[in-house]
Amino acid sequence: PPSMVLTTACPDTTGVVAAVAGFLASHNCLITEAQHYDDPISDTSFMRTVFHDNGQGTPPLQQLDEDFARSVAQRFGMRWKFHEARRKCRAVLAVSKHGHCLNSMLHRWSTGTLPIEVVAVVSNHQDMRSLSEWHGVPYHYLPVLDGRKAEQERRIIELFEKVDGELLVLARYMQILTPTACEYFAGRAINIHHSFLPGFKGAKAYHQAHARGVKLIGATAHYVTTDLDEGPIIEQEVARVDHTMTPEELVSIGADLESVVLNRAVKWHAERRVFANGNKTVVLK
Amino acid sequence: PPSMVLTTACPDTTGVVAAVAGFLASHNCLITEAQHYDDPISDTSFMRTVFHDNGQGTPPLQQLDEDFARSVAQRFGMRWKFHEARRKCRAVLAVSKHGHCLNSMLHRWSTGTLPIEVVAVVSNHQDMRSLSEWHGVPYHYLPVLDGRKAEQERRIIELFEKVDGELLVLARYMQILTPTACEYFAGRAINIHHSFLPGFKGAKAYHQAHARGVKLIGATAHYVTTDLDEGPIIEQEVARVDHTMTPEELVSIGADLESVVLNRAVKWHAERRVFANGNKTVVLK
Amino acid sequence: PPSMVLTTACPDTTGVVAAVAGFLASHNCLITEAQHYDDPISDTSFMRTVFHDNGQGTPPLQQLDEDFARSVAQRFGMRWKFHEARRKCRAVLAVSKHGHCLNSMLHRWSTGTLPIEVVAVVSNHQDMRSLSEWHGVPYHYLPVLDGRKAEQERRIIELFEKVDGELLVLARYMQILTPTACEYFAGRAINIHHSFLPGFKGAKAYHQAHARGVKLIGATAHYVTTDLDEGPIIEQEVARVDHTMTPEELVSIGADLESVVLNRAVKWHAERRVFANGNKTVVLK
Amino acid sequence: PPSMVLTTACPDTTGVVAAVAGFLASHNCLITEAQHYDDPISDTSFMRTVFHDNGQGTPPLQQLDEDFARSVAQRFGMRWKFHEARRKCRAVLAVSKHGHCLNSMLHRWSTGTLPIEVVAVVSNHQDMRSLSEWHGVPYHYLPVLDGRKAEQERRIIELFEKVDGELLVLARYMQILTPTACEYFAGRAINIHHSFLPGFKGAKAYHQAHARGVKLIGATAHYVTTDLDEGPIIEQEVARVDHTMTPEELVSIGADLESVVLNRAVKWHAERRVFANGNKTVVLK
Repeated sequence: PPSMVLTTACPDTTGVVAAVAGFLASHNCLITEAQHYDDPISDTSFMRTVFHDNGQGTPPLQQLDEDFARSVAQRFGMRWKFHEARRKCRAVLAVSKHGHCLNSMLHRWSTGTLPIEVVAVVSNHQDMRSLSEWHGVPYHYLPVLDGRKAEQERRIIELFEKVDGELLVLARYMQILTPTACEYFAGRAINIHHSFLPGFKGAKAYHQAHARGVKLIGATAHYVTTDLDEGPIIEQEVARVDHTMTPEELVSIGADLESVVLNRAVKWHAERRVFANGNKTVVLK
Repeated sequence: PPSMVLTTACPDTTGVVAAVAGFLASHNCLITEAQHYDDPISDTSFMRTVFHDNGQGTPPLQQLDEDFARSVAQRFGMRWKFHEARRKCRAVLAVSKHGHCLNSMLHRWSTGTLPIEVVAVVSNHQDMRSLSEWHGVPYHYLPVLDGRKAEQERRIIELFEKVDGELLVLARYMQILTPTACEYFAGRAINIHHSFLPGFKGAKAYHQAHARGVKLIGATAHYVTTDLDEGPIIEQEVARVDHTMTPEELVSIGADLESVVLNRAVKWHAERRVFANGNKTVVLK
Repeated sequence: PPSMVLTTACPDTTGVVAAVAGFLASHNCLITEAQHYDDPISDTSFMRTVFHDNGQGTPPLQQLDEDFARSVAQRFGMRWKFHEARRKCRAVLAVSKHGHCLNSMLHRWSTGTLPIEVVAVVSNHQDMRSLSEWHGVPYHYLPVLDGRKAEQERRIIELFEKVDGELLVLARYMQILTPTACEYFAGRAINIHHSFLPGFKGAKAYHQAHARGVKLIGATAHYVTTDLDEGPIIEQEVARVDHTMTPEELVSIGADLESVVLNRAVKWHAERRVFANGNKTVVLK
Repeated sequence: PPSMVLTTACPDTTGVVAAVAGFLASHNCLITEAQHYDDPISDTSFMRTVFHDNGQGTPPLQQLDEDFARSVAQRFGMRWKFHEARRKCRAVLAVSKHGHCLNSMLHRWSTGTLPIEVVAVVSNHQDMRSLSEWHGVPYHYLPVLDGRKAEQERRIIELFEKVDGELLVLARYMQILTPTACEYFAGRAINIHHSFLPGFKGAKAYHQAHARGVKLIGATAHYVTTDLDEGPIIEQEVARVDHTMTPEELVSIGADLESVVLNRAVKWHAERRVFANGNKTVVLK
């Protein structure tokens, strides 16, 4: 039977796990995976449950949702969502001129190893049109004209709404979003930064790393917020470098890191494993 | 309030999470962490729950246990155990002549970062007496005389029982346990093997690795079974090596790996995160 | 000024480094990088030197080569080769149905981060034609008909010679080369194996890894020899996995590993850093 | 025959490698390892050569040194040093209250896997006296009284000179050295910082990392300079953490990292592999 995922977050109190699991059992759902974490700092209870029909008939999703709202969510002041596991997260990928992240995401999507549906690529340049269209993905060229960024962002948002987007992935998109756009995409936009944050914020991170003489370089995937390079971190990874390497070689090694880290972050988001928790994330694996 | 840990394993069916969580809620327990995993191959449901008194009075452990047996465990055919988080797992450490694992475990235990109580060191050699006794741990010299291993193992088991041992850690103990001892310690003995299993089983693993020219060496912590180096793997780690290194240098780099891997495995076991699942483990982190 | 690379290997004796470096200095070459390693087991001296014209006029490559043969190589019984650093290694990529390694190599080649010239893709299937041709690389479909593998391999060799191939990369090519082909490509064919060798040789490596319950999976790039999965290892890498993952998820995580490891091995080979040394490699980084 | 190590650094020009290797060959030295790196930014040539008597009689070290000074070093404006490989680097270890780095260094030193001679432990606290003395190392308690740090540092320097110290290791020594001491120990003092620099400088690095929600924590070994946490980095390493971990758990995981990283840095320094190069290091491995 097809799996469903239920995610919940609520103030921490007695009986949350019991209420959620009890609700599912009484609706003929067999739980195959459950993770619950109670953050002692924000006093918030996060839970992710995977389940399917136990053979005796789970009600349809909409009814489940209504019942849950009434019988559980209200009582605990819960934010919650039921997801069909097979319905893939609809993603819009934004890119500028560097295609390594885009290429690796399109490849994984096309081979079915990344559980998203790529519904559009948007770019302020034309460079990645050919790659995107070869994969059969519509390419939207939205340049930033004469610094009219707000206007360009409005068109991105229009596109996002038109294609029913759920996630915006900044796959080496080299424009800083305005606060308005950051707010619009809050919790729905993932960026890849080319350093091991909080080290080397801003531009030319590999050149900064080279100048400092670090022995490992890194990449960081995070939710976009108005605070540049300060959003909640979803995933990070590093690779070893040495004194013989030029900044260009760091860029090349880093390209792999960025692809790997961004793919992981997007996968976890799409699998509903990532919860924003203030300026941090809870990732239930 | 002090935390408690409940671990359960049972055949996979509807309502397990609900029953466990419901039981705890109805006994005034606030769940702070819960992980549930349902293995589709063995059709077994594994669960680990951390909780504490919600302020309205959790019954004492023994009553909880009796109630749970009657109202939940029986119904689901469950193996289960309640643990007081602050009561540390009583460990006996076995060692031969190489002290790097012993040294790092004793250091961590003495600084409180390894949640075990080291109640005895046992060895077939005298080399590690001084280190153990400096840490205030009784040292039991039990040599294997004229190949009378069964007799020596009986004395290890006697000691284990006398000190109320819960876990035997083979911290580079260079004797192969007999089937009798393997059976006695089933699920209660962790060994560190000096390779990335299943590569390089048996003796002189680093020399084997050197001869093969691998670029990474590893270490593996696993539960002891009668099948040498085939027991359920708890943890593994690797480190990079290169062509300039001699077998002796691999041994030296490997010593770090072994210590780190063994400490992690023992820590997770002591925190009741590790469940044997056939010839594999489920580690609920 | 353009860089050149000189690689040498000879029986270990006094004066090798002095002779090589002295030769270069007397021919107006400025050494920018030099690594020398003397293997105490095979008693062989390996050396890689990068240099360029010091401004006073290095002779052309052919004359350098002739002078070196006469004045140095003969005396030390040396195998040696001068390479122009900017002349890229001509590579033929072989693939079957899984395109992740091919995709990542073509992407890196096209962005200039992999120092090879991809001159052809050869396959026993049609699946990767579109990807290859999109990158502008000729695709040669050479199926294995009725088990007539020797015949197909002859055609691969003919192609390799026609395109002046220097390196054959088995980028998830799922046919085992015959001894004849292995011999022909000795030291010129790199394979990627989907496990951390020597663990899990042969087919379905990720399924084997899943069944054994390992906590890390790996990939290994090695030179092809007649001994299946036993050739000299060039590079290995691992990634963490856990009990929740299916064999399919291991395959997906492993795909990344394979790409990364194969790219590194091919890059080092193309930069003339890798020396076969019996059944091992010396990699001068 | 016993090995010797020659390290050299000089302005980059034609003939450096030839001159060094030629000198050794003409003095009956067989080179077993040589690494040369020419930094294009500082225009400096760094070289490390390992050699031994080729059987025909290498002159004694002092004569080698004098000959080298006259015939090579002067010509190239070289800093150089000959080291007997078996003569271990004389190290003074400084510690405050946290003993994990000290414990692991003393253990490795005592088992012969760290090529240093621990000649003294110095501390501003009494906590580590027992551990040090158990290992047979004299313990010098030099508290910082009433903020008179300069005076205490003078006593450290006196001790360092009295015991013929060559290297000061700050193994979790929680006092910031004054500029005077930094200058005195320039290139001779290695500190371990408990973060992946340049992230989280200063105190309470793990608490900073916890607050930022990073997914990997790190440790950094660097030469001490007057710029706090800005000295040339010798080695770094990271470990994975997650949202469930408290700052205290990060401290505990970090303790392993710190030990591993510090031991590597000290080993490489003692093997004469590390060259300061402005605010960076060249590590010839």
